Amino acid sequence: MTTPVYLDNNATTRCDEAVVQAMLPYFTEQFGNPSSMHAFGASVGGAVKAARASLQKLVGAEFDHEIVFTSGGTESDNMAILSALEAAPERSEIITSAVEHPAVLSLCAHLEKTRGIKVHVIPVDGRGLLDIAAYRAALSEKTAVVSIMWANNETGTIFPVAELAELAKEVGAVFHTDAVQAVGKIPIDLKSTAIDMLSLSGHKLHGPKGIGALYVKRGLRFRSLFKGGHQERGRRAGTENTPGIAGLGKAAELALLHMEDEQTRVAGLRDRLEKGLLQRIPNCFVTGNPAERLPNTANIAFEYIEGEGILLLMNREGIAASSGSACTSGSLEPSHVLRAMKIPYTAAHGAIRFSFSRDNTDADVDRVLEVMPPIIEKLRALSPFWKGADQAPATFNPVYA
Amino acid sequence: MTTPVYLDNNATTRCDEAVVQAMLPYFTEQFGNPSSMHAFGASVGGAVKAARASLQKLVGAEFDHEIVFTSGGTESDNMAILSALEAAPERSEIITSAVEHPAVLSLCAHLEKTRGIKVHVIPVDGRGLLDIAAYRAALSEKTAVVSIMWANNETGTIFPVAELAELAKEVGAVFHTDAVQAVGKIPIDLKSTAIDMLSLSGHKLHGPKGIGALYVKRGLRFRSLFKGGHQERGRRAGTENTPGIAGLGKAAELALLHMEDEQTRVAGLRDRLEKGLLQRIPNCFVTGNPAERLPNTANIAFEYIEGEGILLLMNREGIAASSGSACTSGSLEPSHVLRAMKIPYTAAHGAIRFSFSRDNTDADVDRVLEVMPPIIEKLRALSPFWKGADQAPATFNPVYA
Ligand SMILES: Cc1ncc(COP(=O)(O)O)c(C=O)c1O
Ligand SMILES: Cc1ncc(COP(=O)(O)O)c(C=O)c1O
Repeated sequence: MTTPVYLDNNATTRCDEAVVQAMLPYFTEQFGNPSSMHAFGASVGGAVKAARASLQKLVGAEFDHEIVFTSGGTESDNMAILSALEAAPERSEIITSAVEHPAVLSLCAHLEKTRGIKVHVIPVDGRGLLDIAAYRAALSEKTAVVSIMWANNETGTIFPVAELAELAKEVGAVFHTDAVQAVGKIPIDLKSTAIDMLSLSGHKLHGPKGIGALYVKRGLRFRSLFKGGHQERGRRAGTENTPGIAGLGKAAELALLHMEDEQTRVAGLRDRLEKGLLQRIPNCFVTGNPAERLPNTANIAFEYIEGEGILLLMNREGIAASSGSACTSGSLEPSHVLRAMKIPYTAAHGAIRFSFSRDNTDADVDRVLEVMPPIIEKLRALSPFWKGADQAPATFNPVYA
Repeated sequence: MTTPVYLDNNATTRCDEAVVQAMLPYFTEQFGNPSSMHAFGASVGGAVKAARASLQKLVGAEFDHEIVFTSGGTESDNMAILSALEAAPERSEIITSAVEHPAVLSLCAHLEKTRGIKVHVIPVDGRGLLDIAAYRAALSEKTAVVSIMWANNETGTIFPVAELAELAKEVGAVFHTDAVQAVGKIPIDLKSTAIDMLSLSGHKLHGPKGIGALYVKRGLRFRSLFKGGHQERGRRAGTENTPGIAGLGKAAELALLHMEDEQTRVAGLRDRLEKGLLQRIPNCFVTGNPAERLPNTANIAFEYIEGEGILLLMNREGIAASSGSACTSGSLEPSHVLRAMKIPYTAAHGAIRFSFSRDNTDADVDRVLEVMPPIIEKLRALSPFWKGADQAPATFNPVYA
């Protein structure tokens, strides 16, 4: 057996050993409830405080209490949007993009259906870039909240959230960004922006699953999603997940330490894989925006074949990647992201996301470059669509055109 | 230094070492996302399935898929009540009790204020027993959901939830029970009841913090609280907290193993503490219902002094207990539970909850019996209320009358 290669870090990452070590004391020796009055509880409060400060630093928040711990990205996204709506009952519209994660899009669809909220879904172009004119046109005094992601989970495309937030400010709307894929991968400095809320998730940055955070700018009117105890200054009821919080704090610290490596070495691995595949395999292209992209993500569309088939053969070789996001897999439709980008179906069906992390090595890239060409060739030999198309030029290659 | 004594297990418990061991693989070697299509994800799915079966067994559910993993008791409570309301828009009333946890009561108060939901708060008597006549009178075709706890967190009083659920059925209302304090402490067999939903929380049964579950009876109309991915059969969006789930599964397994010990040895420790304190200290009494009580909980009201003062002196001796629940501490009002039971303020102010677990020993009881009498005496000597009262009989002792 060759060593497995994990290139699905946008789905989830391996917890760093140091993160596990940071969590361990809070399961046993220091198991107290930080809300308790006695010594068992008090000592744990310090760990929560330290973790909050570490998150504050990672996202460049002005105050540590702007960080609210949650159970993950989905909870943070839901909480942010619902809070903004509840805090501004006189406003009844949401603006979002066509390529958001289901944690935003499904909630918006639900609110439209059940509460009569008007949802403006701003389209993107072939590279996944937001239609800024449409965004400006949708903004109004009726906008309660804008929710636009910092970076897309499938293509890595980065959105100009700082500018989008400034525009939202002009009409008095709350600006939320789902930064679940951005935090820990690119530098973020919230205090220099007009962003009101930001979601992040521990397991996307080598932290534990089941923990995340929502940044809530000081002074923002906020309504908690869970009602109950007064934890997190009344913003998130429920006994604190202290091991998870300590682990996320450590993950944030490590992410800052590795930030340079992510921008250089990890991006280099990704670029080498991408170029290598395009050289070796005909009729494939990179989706997304190469000019503004996460350093770790490559989404490559292999024309005339099915992504599920590619993943299956890759899996046999011990290589993990994904087609569409994990949450929406199981369906054979191309992902809503690639559909929004109007990637032709013949290509979108064969799109594979390779997502790296600091755990990846040059050997991983070598192995994928070796294994992929025969896989693609084999599948195409079986594809009724490929016959005849094999002499045609790639349909569409916005990136390396 | 003497060894610390932890008698605050209703606030939170120490994670069992075996639970920590059960979690560890899912942080690192088996870190995959169970929703992923590849080998890294698939292996983790089995662990989630096994944990679900273990929870199923602990609560006596008919099907394993009736267990939905959440982030804890508060989320489960909020999710259950909000789901029931959303699933039955033609009904607009909630029935609950005056002694529920804030995760239920604050939510109900919020719904009453913001959505015009009528909330019937059923009173309890001096022993904390529900006023069944009032409950019957409140039930009607308008009742969307009843939420009555299985056992109270402060006094341990057990409610006749199976009977209450039968009555709710008669009017077609959904019956939810907050069993956060009951699960793992007393035998539960849901399949023989009409209970529709049940909340539980990992950290109350030597499992990890940040994980819990909601039992949802098969066939019940259910509306998810978080919108997003299709995890947990669409009932709880968000990447699964796989280490937490594995840990909770192990905790459930251990709780079943120790169930006998809890009913006998742990209950014995509690009884010995209780009797010992009542013998040694004048003017104190047990609150709650001794006939139907959790085996691990003793709530004792020491008249004419302040609970916070008692806890402070206990803490200096390395003994942890609590006054009121951890979530509501910080205020000097007696807890809403003791107020609902109409415990006189002179006694309710001095109520201390001693909550045991399988980690406690005879030595713990000996130590508390040694330390408490001088603490109480010292505080009473300083209390203006005590002077003159010291010759009077205890105001009120419904339990050992
Ligand atoms: C962009 C984005 N938002 C939100 C989420 C949801 O995060 P979680 O699964 O931690 O709830 C994910 C990951 O699945 C994501 O990629
Ligand atoms: C009866 C009861 N319900 C709900 C909760 C809330 O559980 P959690 O803190 O795990 O959210 C608690 C514990 O604090 C409780 O004792």
